[in-house]
Amino acid sequence: MAVPRAPIPVAVLGATGVVGQRFVARLARHPWFCVVALAASEQNAGKRYDEACAWRLPTESHGLAYGGFGAARLRRATPDELVGLGARIVFSALDTGPALELEPAFAANGAWVFSNASAFRMHADVPLLIPEVNAEHLELARVQQRLRGTRGALVCNPNCTATVLTLALAPLERAFGLSDVMVTSFQAVSGAGYPGVASLDILGNVVPFIRNEEEKLAEEPAKMLGVWLGDALRPAALRVSAACYRVPVLDGHTLSVSVRLARSASADDVRAAFESWRGAIAELGLPSALARPLVLHASPDRPQVRLDVDTERGMAVHVGRLRECGVLDFKFSALGHNAERGAAGASILNAELALARGLIEP
Amino acid sequence: MAVPRAPIPVAVLGATGVVGQRFVARLARHPWFCVVALAASEQNAGKRYDEACAWRLPTESHGLAYGGFGAARLRRATPDELVGLGARIVFSALDTGPALELEPAFAANGAWVFSNASAFRMHADVPLLIPEVNAEHLELARVQQRLRGTRGALVCNPNCTATVLTLALAPLERAFGLSDVMVTSFQAVSGAGYPGVASLDILGNVVPFIRNEEEKLAEEPAKMLGVWLGDALRPAALRVSAACYRVPVLDGHTLSVSVRLARSASADDVRAAFESWRGAIAELGLPSALARPLVLHASPDRPQVRLDVDTERGMAVHVGRLRECGVLDFKFSALGHNAERGAAGASILNAELALARGLIEP
Amino acid sequence: MAVPRAPIPVAVLGATGVVGQRFVARLARHPWFCVVALAASEQNAGKRYDEACAWRLPTESHGLAYGGFGAARLRRATPDELVGLGARIVFSALDTGPALELEPAFAANGAWVFSNASAFRMHADVPLLIPEVNAEHLELARVQQRLRGTRGALVCNPNCTATVLTLALAPLERAFGLSDVMVTSFQAVSGAGYPGVASLDILGNVVPFIRNEEEKLAEEPAKMLGVWLGDALRPAALRVSAACYRVPVLDGHTLSVSVRLARSASADDVRAAFESWRGAIAELGLPSALARPLVLHASPDRPQVRLDVDTERGMAVHVGRLRECGVLDFKFSALGHNAERGAAGASILNAELALARGLIEP
Amino acid sequence: MAVPRAPIPVAVLGATGVVGQRFVARLARHPWFCVVALAASEQNAGKRYDEACAWRLPTESHGLAYGGFGAARLRRATPDELVGLGARIVFSALDTGPALELEPAFAANGAWVFSNASAFRMHADVPLLIPEVNAEHLELARVQQRLRGTRGALVCNPNCTATVLTLALAPLERAFGLSDVMVTSFQAVSGAGYPGVASLDILGNVVPFIRNEEEKLAEEPAKMLGVWLGDALRPAALRVSAACYRVPVLDGHTLSVSVRLARSASADDVRAAFESWRGAIAELGLPSALARPLVLHASPDRPQVRLDVDTERGMAVHVGRLRECGVLDFKFSALGHNAERGAAGASILNAELALARGLIEP
Repeated sequence: MAVPRAPIPVAVLGATGVVGQRFVARLARHPWFCVVALAASEQNAGKRYDEACAWRLPTESHGLAYGGFGAARLRRATPDELVGLGARIVFSALDTGPALELEPAFAANGAWVFSNASAFRMHADVPLLIPEVNAEHLELARVQQRLRGTRGALVCNPNCTATVLTLALAPLERAFGLSDVMVTSFQAVSGAGYPGVASLDILGNVVPFIRNEEEKLAEEPAKMLGVWLGDALRPAALRVSAACYRVPVLDGHTLSVSVRLARSASADDVRAAFESWRGAIAELGLPSALARPLVLHASPDRPQVRLDVDTERGMAVHVGRLRECGVLDFKFSALGHNAERGAAGASILNAELALARGLIEP
Repeated sequence: MAVPRAPIPVAVLGATGVVGQRFVARLARHPWFCVVALAASEQNAGKRYDEACAWRLPTESHGLAYGGFGAARLRRATPDELVGLGARIVFSALDTGPALELEPAFAANGAWVFSNASAFRMHADVPLLIPEVNAEHLELARVQQRLRGTRGALVCNPNCTATVLTLALAPLERAFGLSDVMVTSFQAVSGAGYPGVASLDILGNVVPFIRNEEEKLAEEPAKMLGVWLGDALRPAALRVSAACYRVPVLDGHTLSVSVRLARSASADDVRAAFESWRGAIAELGLPSALARPLVLHASPDRPQVRLDVDTERGMAVHVGRLRECGVLDFKFSALGHNAERGAAGASILNAELALARGLIEP
Repeated sequence: MAVPRAPIPVAVLGATGVVGQRFVARLARHPWFCVVALAASEQNAGKRYDEACAWRLPTESHGLAYGGFGAARLRRATPDELVGLGARIVFSALDTGPALELEPAFAANGAWVFSNASAFRMHADVPLLIPEVNAEHLELARVQQRLRGTRGALVCNPNCTATVLTLALAPLERAFGLSDVMVTSFQAVSGAGYPGVASLDILGNVVPFIRNEEEKLAEEPAKMLGVWLGDALRPAALRVSAACYRVPVLDGHTLSVSVRLARSASADDVRAAFESWRGAIAELGLPSALARPLVLHASPDRPQVRLDVDTERGMAVHVGRLRECGVLDFKFSALGHNAERGAAGASILNAELALARGLIEP
Repeated sequence: MAVPRAPIPVAVLGATGVVGQRFVARLARHPWFCVVALAASEQNAGKRYDEACAWRLPTESHGLAYGGFGAARLRRATPDELVGLGARIVFSALDTGPALELEPAFAANGAWVFSNASAFRMHADVPLLIPEVNAEHLELARVQQRLRGTRGALVCNPNCTATVLTLALAPLERAFGLSDVMVTSFQAVSGAGYPGVASLDILGNVVPFIRNEEEKLAEEPAKMLGVWLGDALRPAALRVSAACYRVPVLDGHTLSVSVRLARSASADDVRAAFESWRGAIAELGLPSALARPLVLHASPDRPQVRLDVDTERGMAVHVGRLRECGVLDFKFSALGHNAERGAAGASILNAELALARGLIEP
């Protein structure tokens, strides 16, 4: 792997939102990247970053407020402006609408776009990437470049809940195959952005509905767990049924998961599969990758979001309470940080992989 | 049905706890019952009720603090003392340990014990009763009296979560049969009693473990949905797999439920089954019974615990978000009040049924 | 007092918001009033009420969802439209901007406007009214009619926090005079409307700032506790210093209050002043008035918002923990419901007083 | 200052509680200290640390669970046992009862006891110490040794709320003198230990009472802000009136403070006093001391507990919203971490000072 010799200029689209702020905080301390532009909506362009939004991250664990970019002037989110500044990698925290319009334009202008938006995730020529799980899917970006005739490319990370679920499922799919997955989620409010969920709606409450979320869980894991055939993907055969709930938690999605395996296995087999799994990129030493991306908890009352979600700067996914399921084969609990592992950290890790694999020249 | 002509003297065991207080609040305004004794643990016997515990119920919806019994002296929880006071019905909010010892003693002394404790729920000669669901199971109390040679009897209400689940399942079992049920719960802190869950454990958190809860959900619904054969019960054939979580909610358990039916049905069929169901006791006019014990919500984001749990003084069970399940047949959300429908209100309704059916002479 | 013989037609401005919904819920069950129109912003006019907003009130304590008006079509908030429908009394839950424009227009068109908005509260000819405290200030409405040449009039209720504070101060001002008041508030999120406070801002947090709130507390109580001179008001001489904080509570503002009295008094004197106070309208029997508008708690850990705020449908104000203050004379805790006593219930009680006093002909 | 050349052996009394765990977490990474014994109550002695309690600290910010001491056997909290192990410094997280008995015994046996307990704080010969504020008070320990004839000594840190308040007051006392202080607190649940506050008591609630807390705030700051006369203390003349409330926050006490100064000053003067204050030990370079122990926030809605409390591992105290007070002179908001700055971190900083000053030989 070639570690970049000089910092690589990057830009952040949608820098003022909850995920945008996470991007800025991570990039401010990133060993490979150097932020050359923060971009926001038309009406915020030109404002100082610290005037256009309120920094919502705790000081201690996230370093300087505004990542030290408080005085930076926000840019317009156009390829002309940002690529002109030298940004060869663009991280997108855009909403679906702007993403639909802007992300392809950036790729057409030569930028590599690493997007947290849902707009293009299920497009046939767009890699939906969790490096530990399906690093080889990144090859799809070359197909995309060929098909679209672009120098840049668009790479998506999955929905935050789908990220946690897929990382928990990957060892099982690899070891035993998965036929059925049922999941009920306990989702944090930060998953809805800012201002997002009104406090009147969630204090002391549980809301049994999150728009479009169950649909994403039904389709994204199958794409990510699918097989790369050299020029296209064959989705995995698993069926996913999801029920998504909002709970009064700040950060971190907890999942109650039940699975039916394709091949029979004991609880010890499953436990061993979780414990031994290291993912596909352990040897690459990517800055945002963990030696053990999956943590198996032994204590029966773990993982707990308050105690575990910030482990490894929010990049670890936790599983625990593995036990037999009276209806399917096994059930367990999973947990991950929706805004780090499930959003900003995810996109940045994807960019690191693209560099390490040489798709982007350092 | 014979409405009692004179108030029937009743006692409450474990009156100082969360469920005990709910018993007292409901009984203080009950048209049939008259509280003659509140009993508590040995160390509280003799104290005023308002000195022995702190009343935890909101004033508005629960009437007078301490149900107006603040100055009453707590009694020892022994048959001698309470039956001597004329209490022919005893409501038990005891913990399992004391319940194991005391409840049979009360029944042997001629009292009818309506218990919220788990100690005897699965005993073969003990009715596990939700009147709307399995009123005919009350006949088991006569078997019990014969077998044990007691004039009194012991009748249990189910675990709070099992109550909500079973009321939601009953229309489906009756209409289509159920083969498999998967449920993930979002349980309120009041389900753990007082002081119960430490605030340090649950503020902003989700705890993926509640001791012994999943086991109760696996066995209690099958007993309740079982068929009364005239002298014994044949449990229903359904399998239940439960995953139980604690969330920062005060009162009310929310359930994410998925089911596989024994006979095929459309979503409209299931909706109609929920809507038309009135339960087995609609015609009896019991004071704590509802004309519609089950409320089907049309709005996609309902039921919500904060908005719906107190409906009908906490005796309604709510279902909503009915939709197809990609793995089993259907999934939906259910909600009920753990401390009312799932505890105090449940036991009181059971006693009302026993009176209306003439097992207890008014 | 003349109880209206026929229901009086009323309209609600700003019916879709948090306070608007409280108005609708109270008016739907009001013995004197009959809702003939719900009005909302231009873009919602014409829509069904249940399509234009989500009903945020718990079912049990607030009756039918949408007060039974779910199918009603929202009206434009113009005098032509509403006065044309016969609405002689208009309750305003408007924001400041629209209130500035619309409320005088309604009064000019012959309507009596009972407003929860802050726009006109401090105007010299506008009564700022809490009937129990300063019923006689309502006479200012006649001055207003004369000055402005209107048949209708504009009557304001105070800021929600100022309402709770002023009701707690009134007995002390009457009995001993007040020279200094210091108050720190713990304010519920519903005070900020809907969507109002983002959950990301308040879950597990305390926010030490509420825009414009401290200013209102500094000036409104002095106006209300002032003396009616027959044609104008002389404000009370008390100084108020307020510090306002938002806390993760749904409904109900808690106040930590310290006072310096003008005349010396013992703690027992103060306690007696609280206990004996009944306010100025006890004999009128107004539907929304309480026999005892102020509840003095003896228990050292009361009042508590969760347990006490809904007492008397949210119209009671609670005081407790009275004790000497090492710096000023006494300190105590106060509590009241911001959206009922401090908003919708307040305006409705004001209208009841105007009817009972004959300013509005029934 | 002499930095210890070899790690100094220390023990922790009451290691299983909330504050005990904070001690262990901090000491596990401390450059000067080496934990040789964790002690607990009689019934836990002999158990593994990870069996005797549940580690309540988030993994990320607090390193290894149990500070890496999970397998350590808990010791009995007796001088024989612990001093025998070489512990020359003992950190006490004991409750008042055990502290009264054990802490003097340890001092008599030659140990220096740095205690978070309230038992001896107000004793005339016991230093009540916040190094930045009153480092010179540590000299009182020599008086204590002389009076009591001990080789060891007992040094207390103040109550958690008093710590935050006193650090915020110190710059004002030094610059202008303080005559009156009024404070209302918003206290986190961790201040009550574990299990401490029941979730049923605090979810969605504000509790206006914390036993003995207001009394501590009335007396401790005056002792700490007092003048060291060479052989005794003269307490500061300020009067403190406190009102203490519990709110649903995990860690961190927020204070609403109003002050009357002895000498007149402008808001700018006060602001400058806060900003320029560095405390008495800035030059010592103690491991737990901060270059700026007090952080003055400019943003009107800061400090906020969720965003600011963990700054500098919980050792910073924050002030903000400085403004004039209509009754006293100025008011402002303050914030600090009750379990770090107000407990474990406080005692450890005290020990560091005693070492640096040479009272304890390294």
